[in-house]
Amino acid sequence: MTTDILTRNWRADFPGVGAWHYLDTAATAQKPKQVIDAIARAYGPDYATVHRGVYARSANMTIGYEAARRKVANFIGAGSDSEIVFVRGATEGINLVAASWGGANLTSGDRILLSTLEHHSNIVPWQMIAEKVGASIDVVPLTEDGQIDLDAMEAMITPAHRLVALAHVSNVLGSVLDVERASAIAHGVGAKVLIDGCQAVPRLGVDVQALGCDFYVFSAHKLYGPTGIGVLWARKELLDAMPPYQGGGSMIDKVTFEKTTYAPAPTRFEAGTPHIVGVSGLAAAIDYVQAIGLDVIHAHEVALVAQAREALSDLNSVRLFGPENSAGILSFEVEGVHPHDVGTILDEEDVAIRAGHHCAQPLMRHLGVEATARASFGIYNDESDVAALVRGIERVRKIFT
Amino acid sequence: MTTDILTRNWRADFPGVGAWHYLDTAATAQKPKQVIDAIARAYGPDYATVHRGVYARSANMTIGYEAARRKVANFIGAGSDSEIVFVRGATEGINLVAASWGGANLTSGDRILLSTLEHHSNIVPWQMIAEKVGASIDVVPLTEDGQIDLDAMEAMITPAHRLVALAHVSNVLGSVLDVERASAIAHGVGAKVLIDGCQAVPRLGVDVQALGCDFYVFSAHKLYGPTGIGVLWARKELLDAMPPYQGGGSMIDKVTFEKTTYAPAPTRFEAGTPHIVGVSGLAAAIDYVQAIGLDVIHAHEVALVAQAREALSDLNSVRLFGPENSAGILSFEVEGVHPHDVGTILDEEDVAIRAGHHCAQPLMRHLGVEATARASFGIYNDESDVAALVRGIERVRKIFT
Repeated sequence: MTTDILTRNWRADFPGVGAWHYLDTAATAQKPKQVIDAIARAYGPDYATVHRGVYARSANMTIGYEAARRKVANFIGAGSDSEIVFVRGATEGINLVAASWGGANLTSGDRILLSTLEHHSNIVPWQMIAEKVGASIDVVPLTEDGQIDLDAMEAMITPAHRLVALAHVSNVLGSVLDVERASAIAHGVGAKVLIDGCQAVPRLGVDVQALGCDFYVFSAHKLYGPTGIGVLWARKELLDAMPPYQGGGSMIDKVTFEKTTYAPAPTRFEAGTPHIVGVSGLAAAIDYVQAIGLDVIHAHEVALVAQAREALSDLNSVRLFGPENSAGILSFEVEGVHPHDVGTILDEEDVAIRAGHHCAQPLMRHLGVEATARASFGIYNDESDVAALVRGIERVRKIFT
Repeated sequence: MTTDILTRNWRADFPGVGAWHYLDTAATAQKPKQVIDAIARAYGPDYATVHRGVYARSANMTIGYEAARRKVANFIGAGSDSEIVFVRGATEGINLVAASWGGANLTSGDRILLSTLEHHSNIVPWQMIAEKVGASIDVVPLTEDGQIDLDAMEAMITPAHRLVALAHVSNVLGSVLDVERASAIAHGVGAKVLIDGCQAVPRLGVDVQALGCDFYVFSAHKLYGPTGIGVLWARKELLDAMPPYQGGGSMIDKVTFEKTTYAPAPTRFEAGTPHIVGVSGLAAAIDYVQAIGLDVIHAHEVALVAQAREALSDLNSVRLFGPENSAGILSFEVEGVHPHDVGTILDEEDVAIRAGHHCAQPLMRHLGVEATARASFGIYNDESDVAALVRGIERVRKIFT
């Protein structure tokens, strides 16, 4: 199966890849020409504003915009279109929930549960609202191989925990969370569950209703789509009860200087002219990955990571982080060599990895490192990229020994 | 001069315009191919993340991103690059100032001064923060011809007014504010001044230091640039003192679960992966308008509005709103005909105008109407568009009489 998968060639769809060994997809994915063409069309012959024009092209753009909302809802298994809020990205989605839901529902003495491996975007917004309302934060530890320890979570959670926020897939380790179990544990004490799906949505089939969580966020640019656009999904009854986050055009019902009333969700949360073309591009990206199939994408990336893990574990100065079955993401260090030097030397070999704390400083401290080198895979990668990575690391070892 | 200007042809640069009579530029501007090409390049062979990669293409993208910040700073006469924050759009910019500066500086009993003609995006964020801190809102009235009445402002402002927020150019009437005088009046009582520059930046040369205001916001999509990206300018000493708005990646200095410290401005206000390609497109849009010159653009649009006003005032059932010297925007009504019907009939003639409250319900109440029809001009418009507008309105009158 592995060989079969690896011989498929989606690489030619990506004008940004070519002969380059791009292994930084967890930071941002390259875009297929189908997405770039959709964006150029939306800025060209199709361009108009949404929701406001009385002329045909604006009406068509509005139809496309709302069809994209439906497409997103279907893509992640939402109960209805009106549970989908278009946001700037996952970061804004989490900030929106923290400020709006958190501001209305968290009070002094409440507790929020995160995990050691969270991205800063799933830590800092909770710290900000916790400080504002007087809530506290607890942290679920990790298992030996870098997964969120759900047994520990079950043991430590209390009815004071009103919200649990966890990554579906770790951006550093590729660890995949059992969201269904995490949600059941949280709901057992009445806590709501937010899942950061940034790394999961491009790598796994996601069905938010089957997962059982309450909020789910992701960014389009990691899903082979445009920058500046992302999605917040929230259960309808939660979203309907949440106060507005930003004020402005479109999100109102009626404005007077004495009193303003707001539109129903999701409109209430989309103040101002939306990122119209971002939404067009996101729809094209969903079409692209759905045509391949998330199961195929997942198997493809798992096979590449397995191949890379196997080859790198043969090199005795390389330390691999994270679980065996990670989803498309592999962090490592070359003993005695700073990850930035690893990245720089690999760049000379046309291999692009990321080196740094990956916006996960608490996880770095847990791993006992300042930084890691990270190779992350996408649909355009193949065996040649793994081979180039291994060759590059062999060169790193030669230079530094 | 008028004729000379009108014979220049920028229309061919805009694949979204063609033979269409697009008169809805105040809602959103069409994009020149120079901008669309820059966006396609940024999503294709140039694509990479910013600020994080150790490989060359990411370093180049970062250089481009920061060069765009410098370009924006020069374009609006900012004192330094670090006064420029990239936001989702003007709406987010105003919400950021209201929540961050307002949250830190406004308290119970303070007053905020707006005007009757403000866009909802320059009303609702102030209502939200006022409600939160217990501040109140006052409203500067308009002159007979629809300009913010600065004599009235001078008479009504008090030291309790901590912030004045006004539109540089009205999105309904095209009225141009004397920002210099408004800023002087506000500073006379120690109030800060935020200017909504959405309609001004594409229509006038803007120099924020010469204008004397403290905050200035605009959206790229109204400046012939991409959707989902905008700019907040704030004086350095104000921005440096403002607490973060959204938490996440990039905006931090150091994260621990116990305590997080933040990066300096403007980084502190740019949480998460930015709208990288939006910034590339904004830079291309600025290049485009600067190559023509804002003085030329302004003269071009003033000439078109004057021509339209003259032709329409000959039709005795047409009522024109706003001042004679409006900047590129003309609101009107055809007596006895709902603006939506005007818009629909014009659409049949390939003329796109906007009909509605234009996100300015308080102004509609002031004008004594539910809605207006609005024709707004851009660099691609010419005499043929004015002629088509007038022909269309003559047809409206025939149908309804």
